[in-house]
Amino acid sequence: MVDARAERLRRYIRNVPDFPKKGIMFRDITTLLQDKEAFYQAIDILHDRYQGSRLQKIVSIESRGFIFGSALAYCLHAGFVPVRKPKKLPSKTIREEYQLEYGTDALEMHVDAIENGERVLIVDDLVATGGTAVAACNLVKKLGGEVAGIAFLIELSFLNPRAKLKNYDVYSMIAYDSE
Amino acid sequence: MVDARAERLRRYIRNVPDFPKKGIMFRDITTLLQDKEAFYQAIDILHDRYQGSRLQKIVSIESRGFIFGSALAYCLHAGFVPVRKPKKLPSKTIREEYQLEYGTDALEMHVDAIENGERVLIVDDLVATGGTAVAACNLVKKLGGEVAGIAFLIELSFLNPRAKLKNYDVYSMIAYDSE
Repeated sequence: MVDARAERLRRYIRNVPDFPKKGIMFRDITTLLQDKEAFYQAIDILHDRYQGSRLQKIVSIESRGFIFGSALAYCLHAGFVPVRKPKKLPSKTIREEYQLEYGTDALEMHVDAIENGERVLIVDDLVATGGTAVAACNLVKKLGGEVAGIAFLIELSFLNPRAKLKNYDVYSMIAYDSE
Repeated sequence: MVDARAERLRRYIRNVPDFPKKGIMFRDITTLLQDKEAFYQAIDILHDRYQGSRLQKIVSIESRGFIFGSALAYCLHAGFVPVRKPKKLPSKTIREEYQLEYGTDALEMHVDAIENGERVLIVDDLVATGGTAVAACNLVKKLGGEVAGIAFLIELSFLNPRAKLKNYDVYSMIAYDSE
């Protein structure tokens, strides 16, 4: 089901060809963020969707994910948990590796970030193959949290991220079905 | 003047010795963020301070700065502008260099992020020497914006960042007067 309010936000996304490398069409959200109405609407749509979901924590992935996750955490009166690249978090962490096109990378979360049984929403700006989202879910589950859902501003649906995320309640505001 | 509400947030900051290197006491804000009441209070204090300031844009510095800047932008119904490390922003940018202990680094902002005459608040999680905050201010001014103020959650006042920022209206929620 297409959310008409969400669909109207599509025109605020800037398409930047050949970034970060030749042949890639980059979906630039900064043009949405800098428009006060569009940014407000984006957070409001997430707020409407998840209020009443009894979420205790919003978990967001470095660094554009922080932009949507923190505003939503404020709205929902939930705690905010940053998931970061290795060695950025100062205290004791757990780690999850994920596949890149060539090789692997990893994400970390503080061990005290989630309490056993807490209901958690994962928030990121964009999902491509779903690898980092799966890693974030695994971090939450390792600490005994329940992944109540995953929300993205943008889904590159032609890369079929939902195959990897089929065990989760996934919401994306704007989907691109081709590059 | 000490804001009593802000001062109560100090106990949510975790002190991590020897991070990122030996001899540094790192002020870890993740323990504040993950507490829903403390995070809500922090944003609310900023909201109370800046509502009525007719701010059109909130500019925040990658990546912890995003966490406070975006939630505040939502509250104040302002646009949000990320300032990032080189080569992270996909479209045309302007750049400002700043001094590190050894060498220099740079920050970038999209050229269309600020319109001429817009009133802007700079938000970051922490100010140490003030170098990155000055760079962010210079980026805003290059685009014709007016820096209406600069807000930090934490000020390492023993490093005297206000010397560099003396031409600006600076607010910090929690100050540390020694390492």
